Amino acid sequence: MAMGVKRAVVLLSGGLDSATCAAIARAEGFEIYALTMLYGQRHAVEIEAARRVAGAVGVADQVLLEIDLRRFGGSALTADIAVPKDRDEAAMTANIPITYVPARNTIFLSYALGWAEVLGTGDIFIGVNALDYSGYPDCRPEFVGAFETMANLATKGAVEGTCPVRIHAPLLHLSKSDIIRRGLELGFDYGITHSCYDPTAEGLACGACDSCRLRLRGFADVGFEDPAPYVPGAKDRP
Amino acid sequence: MAMGVKRAVVLLSGGLDSATCAAIARAEGFEIYALTMLYGQRHAVEIEAARRVAGAVGVADQVLLEIDLRRFGGSALTADIAVPKDRDEAAMTANIPITYVPARNTIFLSYALGWAEVLGTGDIFIGVNALDYSGYPDCRPEFVGAFETMANLATKGAVEGTCPVRIHAPLLHLSKSDIIRRGLELGFDYGITHSCYDPTAEGLACGACDSCRLRLRGFADVGFEDPAPYVPGAKDRP
Repeated sequence: MAMGVKRAVVLLSGGLDSATCAAIARAEGFEIYALTMLYGQRHAVEIEAARRVAGAVGVADQVLLEIDLRRFGGSALTADIAVPKDRDEAAMTANIPITYVPARNTIFLSYALGWAEVLGTGDIFIGVNALDYSGYPDCRPEFVGAFETMANLATKGAVEGTCPVRIHAPLLHLSKSDIIRRGLELGFDYGITHSCYDPTAEGLACGACDSCRLRLRGFADVGFEDPAPYVPGAKDRP
Repeated sequence: MAMGVKRAVVLLSGGLDSATCAAIARAEGFEIYALTMLYGQRHAVEIEAARRVAGAVGVADQVLLEIDLRRFGGSALTADIAVPKDRDEAAMTANIPITYVPARNTIFLSYALGWAEVLGTGDIFIGVNALDYSGYPDCRPEFVGAFETMANLATKGAVEGTCPVRIHAPLLHLSKSDIIRRGLELGFDYGITHSCYDPTAEGLACGACDSCRLRLRGFADVGFEDPAPYVPGAKDRP
């Protein structure tokens, strides 16, 4: 490792948030080790997006790790439950969404912690966001802080003081439009990202699931057209 | 779920500690959901032991989950580094052992947390032990407590108050001989467990690795012969 190079493990799904998070980590001077988790989700097209984003950001390495959360059941993203469509914001945020995956960010951050330790770093980036989507308990600042505290007691590097763990969550308090603005400032091309929970076989975003609606509204707020591919008419919906 | 039945996820490797932990959970009245993690370890014979122990304890379900920590490298249990042999206790406890797997217990407990949530419980058992083997940072009470705190902020069930998370670590402050005594009191047959880091192809324990030495000394302290199969002469070594 060259003198002064700071390594960071970045959780990278290929979605808008994690892509922006990776771009921010790069802008902060980190050498990026992208960790992409495959967890039996239906939106496998996201993986291709994760590869494209890794290329665009210029990562030092990317690991794609397959884990099988389906064996546990319990979520629309991993089981055969219909993804909700065309919900308004009140419905999206009223309850924890059925697209919630049990302990997902805990599991993802745990793997990131393991890889970080092997890489000799304690810097981990995750693109969680508490404002736009408050239904996921593991996207809140309290969770991120508690994970960091736990992690600093968990690994050899942290306990010995050589690699204190820091969980960077630069999007935590940003709105979707703030996130998009930050990425555009960094020159990031969102056309290569993918956010839809229920894409077509060709990889076109549906425009109707919660993730698409939040994304489209974010771009509308910024006054910039989302460059990602959607099914015809999806971008013109109210 | 029948009225009054308490479910618990128990991390079960097939080794002596986790088997005792499962027997204790059962004795406390829990219905056991055994989670056995396969992580590219060389001692795959342990998996057969985990199945035998699950049968002996009488679990409600057992999930064997394969995860690939080899992609991260960094440990004798997952990479091609020689397992240390015939070390005395001072050497074993002087440093964090090279058999340490980065973030292992963090990753295992995270999966247990996800399964527990789906099962509608917050009770998780792990057979970590701080006394006999102080080299692993993620076997200490501080770690277990911090994980529990984090977990109570991570899941829907914990946050909504229906499934507060409790990480049970009943072996935490027991010596190896205390653990063995407790299991024997419960009528547990240690002959079906497997602890060796470096078994023969036939599944015989080497008697020389740190794990075998701690185990054999524990049985010697109790004054009970270890019923598990070892290579010839291993049980008679000093």
